[in-house]
Amino acid sequence: MTRALKTPLAISLGDPAGIGPEVIAKCWDNRDGFSLPSFVAIGDPASVAAVWDGPIELVDDPRQADAAFDYGLPLIQLNAPRPDLPGHPSVAGAHTSLDALEIAVGLARSGSAAAVVTGPVAKEQLYAIGFQHPGQTEFVAERCGVSPGNVVMMLAGPTLRTVPVTTHLPLSEVPAQLSSALIESRGRAALRGLQRNFGIAEPRLAITGLNPHAGEGGQLGREEMEIIEPAIAALAAEGWLVTGPHPADTLFHARARANYDAALCMYHDQALIPIKALHFEDAVNVTLGLPIVRTAPDHGTAFDIAGQDRADPRPMAAAIRMAAENAILRADTA
Amino acid sequence: MTRALKTPLAISLGDPAGIGPEVIAKCWDNRDGFSLPSFVAIGDPASVAAVWDGPIELVDDPRQADAAFDYGLPLIQLNAPRPDLPGHPSVAGAHTSLDALEIAVGLARSGSAAAVVTGPVAKEQLYAIGFQHPGQTEFVAERCGVSPGNVVMMLAGPTLRTVPVTTHLPLSEVPAQLSSALIESRGRAALRGLQRNFGIAEPRLAITGLNPHAGEGGQLGREEMEIIEPAIAALAAEGWLVTGPHPADTLFHARARANYDAALCMYHDQALIPIKALHFEDAVNVTLGLPIVRTAPDHGTAFDIAGQDRADPRPMAAAIRMAAENAILRADTA
Repeated sequence: MTRALKTPLAISLGDPAGIGPEVIAKCWDNRDGFSLPSFVAIGDPASVAAVWDGPIELVDDPRQADAAFDYGLPLIQLNAPRPDLPGHPSVAGAHTSLDALEIAVGLARSGSAAAVVTGPVAKEQLYAIGFQHPGQTEFVAERCGVSPGNVVMMLAGPTLRTVPVTTHLPLSEVPAQLSSALIESRGRAALRGLQRNFGIAEPRLAITGLNPHAGEGGQLGREEMEIIEPAIAALAAEGWLVTGPHPADTLFHARARANYDAALCMYHDQALIPIKALHFEDAVNVTLGLPIVRTAPDHGTAFDIAGQDRADPRPMAAAIRMAAENAILRADTA
Repeated sequence: MTRALKTPLAISLGDPAGIGPEVIAKCWDNRDGFSLPSFVAIGDPASVAAVWDGPIELVDDPRQADAAFDYGLPLIQLNAPRPDLPGHPSVAGAHTSLDALEIAVGLARSGSAAAVVTGPVAKEQLYAIGFQHPGQTEFVAERCGVSPGNVVMMLAGPTLRTVPVTTHLPLSEVPAQLSSALIESRGRAALRGLQRNFGIAEPRLAITGLNPHAGEGGQLGREEMEIIEPAIAALAAEGWLVTGPHPADTLFHARARANYDAALCMYHDQALIPIKALHFEDAVNVTLGLPIVRTAPDHGTAFDIAGQDRADPRPMAAAIRMAAENAILRADTA
C-alpha cells in the first residue's frame, strides 16, 4: 500500500498528555504487522519520548518522511513550553494539539501530505484556550473552507459503515431536530463520500426509522411518515439508491448488512451502538464532504490510562490504513 | 438435556398462517442436530401439514409426548373451522393461535409441561377478535396471575442479555416515561430472573444512560443525573451488583460484555440493536417474573415467506433450548 501514495500521511499527535503519542508510536513499531504506509507525526517530541523508547526522526518537511520511516518515527517538531506529564493535560498542551492539527490540515491542503489522521484532543482544554468549534471535525471543515453543515461523520468498520444524522444532542431533542432537509443533506454527503472516498460508483444507503419497528405504520410514532419517508423519496428522485425507513434493530445483522454500503441513522447511539458492538477495535471516524481525506480513531484521550503502556494501537492503525485507502481511491478518481 | 426434564415443553404453533408451524416442524426434523429435548406442539395439524411432509403424532396428553417424540412431531390437536393458507391470516386462525397459547400456559401452570415456548402471532388479527393485551407476554402474565408491570422481556443470546425498560413507545415519549421507580422495578425483575432462570447467584446488571455518552455530566441531557443514577443507588442499597449509567455505545463490545450478566437499557432499540447485531439467529425472548418459564423466538409471523420453506428454524431452536435450560435451573433451585 505504501508505494501507491506519492506523499506520506500527516498525523497530529493530539493532546500531548493523552494516549495519542503512545498509539502513534506503537503504530510505527508495528508498521509492518499493521500494513501501514509512510506517515509523519506532528507534535511535541517530548510527549512521545515520555511514553516510548523508540527512535524519533525529526524532519522539517513531509518529503523527508519516506526515507526516514525505516529508521524511526518521522516527526515534525512542535515544542511545548513545558512538556505535559501523561494523564495531566494543560492549556499549553491544548495549544500544541491545535497547532499540530492546523499544520496537518495545511500539509494535506497543499498536497504535501496525502491525508490527515488526527490524534485525540481534550475538548475541555481547547475550550479554555478559546477554541470555538464543537470538535476537530468542524475545525478541519472551516480550515478547508467548507460549511460544517456540509460535512458528515461516518463510522467505518470492516463490515459496517454508519452515519448519524444528529450527533451530540440529548435524546429528548432528537425528534425536534430531525427534518427532511437535514436527512437529505446528510444522506447526500454520505452517498457522495461513498463514491469519492470508498470508490463505490453506485452506493446503496439504508436509512433507519426513528421509532421502534420504524413506527409500525404510525402506531409507534409518525416521524417516519412525516419526515423520513419524504427525505427518502427526494433522494431517490435524484437517482440515489436509498431504502428505508428500516427498523433499526433488524438492520445490522450480517445478512442485512450485505444489502447496503452505509446506514444513515437518526441519532448518535443508533449509529454508534452497532458499529462499536461489531467493530470496537477497528472502527474509524471518517469525515466526508471535505476537499481532503481526514480520518481519526474512534476513541478519546483516555487520560486515565495515558503513560501506562496500556493503550491499544489498533484503532489508530485502522484510521491510518483507511486514510491511505481513501486517499488512493480519491487520487484514482480525481 | 432431554433426560433432565421430567415433562416435555409445550409449544404453541402461533398463527397458523405464519412461519410458526414450519419452524417448529423443522426443529423436530433437526432435533438431534439442535440438541432439543422432547416437546409437544399445540395447534391445528392442518397448518403443519400444509408446509411440511413429516410425520405428526397426535397426542391427548403431554405424558404421551416423550414416547411419541422419536416417531413424529407430537401435537395436541386444535381444529380450526377452515385451515388458513400459509401467508393468509384470518380471524379463525387468530382464535386457534390464542387457544393454543392458553392451553400451553395451562399445561405449564399445572406442571404437565416443563415450560412454554410460543410461536409468533399476528397482533392485528388478535385485536380483531377482541384480544386486549399488547402482546402474548402480557396475556401469559395475566393467566399466571401476575401484573404485567412485574414481568420483563429479556433478549438473551450466547454472549449478551438485554432488558428494555420501555418497549413499544414512540422515541419522543421515552424520556417522559422513564422514572426511577420504573427503572428500579425492571432492574429488580431482571436481577431476580438472572437468579431464578439462569442460576446466577450474584447477578451483575449494567445500566445504560439515555443520552449520548450517558449525558456527559449533564452536558447532553440530565436524565442520567435525575432519574437513572438515583435508581442505580436504590438498587445498590438493596445489595444488588449494579453499575452505570454507562454510555450505551461502548457497552456492547466483547470486553465490555464480560463485565455483566445483563444490560438494562432505557428503550427498545437501545436493547434490541446490539442483541440482533450480535445474535440475530439465536437471540431468545425470555419473559422474567412469571411463575413459569416462557420463551419465544425473537421474530414475527413473517407472512411474506410463509409456506415457501424459507423460514430459518434456528431462532425457534434457540428458544426451545433456552426454555429447557431455564426450566432445569428453576427445578434445581425450587
